[in-house]
Amino acid sequence: MVSFQEINSPLRTIMTPGPVEVDPRVLRAMSNPILGQFDPAFTTMMNETMEMLRGVFQTKNKWAFPIDGTSRSGLEAVLCSVLEPGDKVLIPIFGRFGHLLTEIAERNGADIHLMECEWGTVFDQEEIINEVKRVKPKVLAVVHGETSTGCMQPLDKVGPACRELGVLTIVDAVATIGGTEVKVDEWQLDAVIGGTQKCLSVPSGMAPITYNERVEEILARRKKVEKGVATDQDRVNVQHPIRSNYFDLSQLQDYWGPRRLNHHTEATSMLYALREGVRIVLQEGLKERFSRHRFHERALIEGIKAMGLTLFNEGPQKLPMVTCVDIPEGVDGEKVRTMLLEQFGIEIASSFGPLHGKIWRIGAMGYSCRKENILFVLSALEASLIRNGAKIQVGRGLQAALDVYEAGSLQEKENGKESTVIK
Amino acid sequence: MVSFQEINSPLRTIMTPGPVEVDPRVLRAMSNPILGQFDPAFTTMMNETMEMLRGVFQTKNKWAFPIDGTSRSGLEAVLCSVLEPGDKVLIPIFGRFGHLLTEIAERNGADIHLMECEWGTVFDQEEIINEVKRVKPKVLAVVHGETSTGCMQPLDKVGPACRELGVLTIVDAVATIGGTEVKVDEWQLDAVIGGTQKCLSVPSGMAPITYNERVEEILARRKKVEKGVATDQDRVNVQHPIRSNYFDLSQLQDYWGPRRLNHHTEATSMLYALREGVRIVLQEGLKERFSRHRFHERALIEGIKAMGLTLFNEGPQKLPMVTCVDIPEGVDGEKVRTMLLEQFGIEIASSFGPLHGKIWRIGAMGYSCRKENILFVLSALEASLIRNGAKIQVGRGLQAALDVYEAGSLQEKENGKESTVIK
Repeated sequence: MVSFQEINSPLRTIMTPGPVEVDPRVLRAMSNPILGQFDPAFTTMMNETMEMLRGVFQTKNKWAFPIDGTSRSGLEAVLCSVLEPGDKVLIPIFGRFGHLLTEIAERNGADIHLMECEWGTVFDQEEIINEVKRVKPKVLAVVHGETSTGCMQPLDKVGPACRELGVLTIVDAVATIGGTEVKVDEWQLDAVIGGTQKCLSVPSGMAPITYNERVEEILARRKKVEKGVATDQDRVNVQHPIRSNYFDLSQLQDYWGPRRLNHHTEATSMLYALREGVRIVLQEGLKERFSRHRFHERALIEGIKAMGLTLFNEGPQKLPMVTCVDIPEGVDGEKVRTMLLEQFGIEIASSFGPLHGKIWRIGAMGYSCRKENILFVLSALEASLIRNGAKIQVGRGLQAALDVYEAGSLQEKENGKESTVIK
Repeated sequence: MVSFQEINSPLRTIMTPGPVEVDPRVLRAMSNPILGQFDPAFTTMMNETMEMLRGVFQTKNKWAFPIDGTSRSGLEAVLCSVLEPGDKVLIPIFGRFGHLLTEIAERNGADIHLMECEWGTVFDQEEIINEVKRVKPKVLAVVHGETSTGCMQPLDKVGPACRELGVLTIVDAVATIGGTEVKVDEWQLDAVIGGTQKCLSVPSGMAPITYNERVEEILARRKKVEKGVATDQDRVNVQHPIRSNYFDLSQLQDYWGPRRLNHHTEATSMLYALREGVRIVLQEGLKERFSRHRFHERALIEGIKAMGLTLFNEGPQKLPMVTCVDIPEGVDGEKVRTMLLEQFGIEIASSFGPLHGKIWRIGAMGYSCRKENILFVLSALEASLIRNGAKIQVGRGLQAALDVYEAGSLQEKENGKESTVIK
């Protein structure tokens, strides 16, 4: 029966929009021995992780902690805790993950209002604000970085406008957290959900979230402590209790807060991983980390273009950590992807829905966002395209990327400091 | 800002009903590099894990896979996928986790019927069967091992009776899986939820489940594929869609099955951990593993009694891997627990609800269930009780436990085989 061997996973170069390569420091952190969930040594780590998450989210919010599940568990926890049946929610859709927000809100009985734009574009912020004024929703739920289309929706004006209109802004920042600016407080976002397996370079399995006192007020009204652990101070009758026990933020608060009321058993090793992951982010520095992502994006883009390939989208709406490349005519995109994996051990992504078969998506996120990875994926892509009969500019991709890297090194030297950007 | 140091978690002896010590092989497995979720090297591991889970659950069910969340996420996934609003569910309660089942079913709009017995006892199976006949529920949801009271509910007659009556049996085997018999097929259980952080000795953060074609039929009727990935073959209008996207077993099946339809991003490192954890269980052998738990339980019980302490419950309904000890009169239970942790680095558990302050719960689960741990907890408990002024029989606890161990070694020798039980 037990004929399976021990794990011996191949070492891949992962250039997808997630999950990406995990920092070896994070992998090591996970091999620490287990602690009980109420062991002071562990609750201290929980508090430290909350403190560091506030730094990553650029917020003073009291609540910043992970949901024990993958990224979409964070989306569902926030949406199901905030949305009561019949609540109006407005969702601007510019890719697959807008549909996911819709899907989750719908299953929670919300009254859904959608606005859509073509995949590959984003909304003008005024458009969203006008629709918010027209629909008057309780909640605006919006994706920040759409990995499905490589687009990023600006939110710096949307957030403050919603605040003024008394509308809650809930943001899916799964793809962007730790890779580009997500200014929770400055943009006046009420709840934000991040992902671990992308720019934080922590394995999938946790979803860090943060929310402010506006959300907390809603939770307080819906709070229902489970009978096995409730005391007399806990109300039992609530009009619209949160439909999920696992995702009930009002109970999770009591577990992460000083009351330490038993709920789930915190995922110990994943918490170790997240703690080390956010520590690495803050040690690198947010600004430095965001510049690093932009810098390698530049090298990747120049390399792709010099090869004679075209980008699916470029310009201010482009997501810095995901680059979508048009699959050249006559080339079987999946054949190229298979060759990349089998010959080079490199993974890049295909796409969903209307873009399926039309574009490749190359991620450069977190620990995967390194010079050697960018150069390797460009060289492997060139070789695989030649092998698949594509007409490309041979030999130019790497030269263009190297130009970017050399110029970057030069500029760093002129600035008289050690290279922090180019790692 | 980043003043936090690297993780340096103290090495504890964890004798609670979970989370318990993780096998070092599992910790090492987690430090393997990440793979993409659709990398053939990873999907192979997913399939292998399913195959080994079938072995652990003693089932031929097609579906046996983990939910990416802690144990209660598995309970919620099964209950919310099976229960439609208004569905009758019968829940026999004999401890805290019966209340948890109630809580989850209630939030999903089910019509709840309860039967309760005193904490510390279990139901006669005929009682449950009679109540099933009277209530005629769609589902019987019942806890197998109640860690809150150290009791185990026999189900070998309940399952077949429910099958005959057309009632689905859903079982919370979080505490028992991998530590004592959980015969999914033989007992005719329709859906069973296990836990990782107890007898499997894998960190918290995954919930392995299994279910049969009866459950699958219900899922097929409620199936709703999300718009971002749905194709024409997927129906969109469903009368009572599952209220959760994250816990929708019909979608999870398509992710774990050959269709490999994108849902969440599987928690890579936790899957490595679970795969190694179940591999260890099957390598040890189910029968051998269950005997080991019974054997160390015997040593612990004899030691406790010889010390002059009394057990909260004993006899056939006792959960083999959790031993509940009455806190002697005049002793502050929490003071003793704190001393155990601070002086000895040992963790034992307090209790919930009506038992709070009255009993300690000592777990001996999975990797924590070892001779040196049993002997250490007995000696530390004796010393701490003396220090707290309790009247106990000094020096006798360890002698009684050693008697059990020496007799066990002798018996092994007489059976003419290498010791497999005493590890």
